Amino acid sequence: MKQQSRKIFISSLALIFGGLATKASSIHTMTNEQLIHHVFFWLKNPDSKEDLEKLLEGLRTLSKIETVRKIHIGVPATTEKRDVVESSYAASELLFFEDLAGQKTYQDHPVHQAFVKNCSHLWEKVVVYDVVDV
Amino acid sequence: MKQQSRKIFISSLALIFGGLATKASSIHTMTNEQLIHHVFFWLKNPDSKEDLEKLLEGLRTLSKIETVRKIHIGVPATTEKRDVVESSYAASELLFFEDLAGQKTYQDHPVHQAFVKNCSHLWEKVVVYDVVDV
Repeated sequence: MKQQSRKIFISSLALIFGGLATKASSIHTMTNEQLIHHVFFWLKNPDSKEDLEKLLEGLRTLSKIETVRKIHIGVPATTEKRDVVESSYAASELLFFEDLAGQKTYQDHPVHQAFVKNCSHLWEKVVVYDVVDV
Repeated sequence: MKQQSRKIFISSLALIFGGLATKASSIHTMTNEQLIHHVFFWLKNPDSKEDLEKLLEGLRTLSKIETVRKIHIGVPATTEKRDVVESSYAASELLFFEDLAGQKTYQDHPVHQAFVKNCSHLWEKVVVYDVVDV
């Protein structure tokens, strides 16, 4: 009977600590580490629809990289023009990674390297924002 | 029998066009109209943790606005420093709206207005990017 109580006690401890570990890992992934990588591109030929299409096509290949959790490829919206709104860029690439390591894998990935090699002649300026959720 | 065939024909048409309408509406919502609103804030006192906390607290209230589909409040990540990476901002607000109208509702919403009233003394500069998925 005593041994059975000990077994129950040990099983309970395992359940409690197992639960806490899962919870901690889940909070970690959800809030502390998720990385948002937002890149804005300005074209050398801002009026060239062909260059824009080539750039957008190149950006879409980035979804193949396994650490990219979500991808949004876009262009400036037709929201109200205000002094604070920056709308002179040509294309936007918004990527979500699980963590910093996922972003590093992406930077070094052959698909990303090919994109830079094939498309960097199209752009004049790039601005990158890397954000972590708080 | 002839009338029954006609009924079946009309029902089939309804099914086909109903399906197409649903598909078109779904594509529309998913790709043509979704609006990404990304705002970066630079503080007047960039070294003040208190001011940053106040700003982050204010930004979190924006989730109450009914047209905000997703919200991410963040700070600069500790990714590799590169010339193209802009990491001098203090806070980032990334919002997803279903469409342009959702963003307009947000701009005029009392919760947004209260945030601007209560927090705008904290920041020196704001840069806004409004993006539509393509």
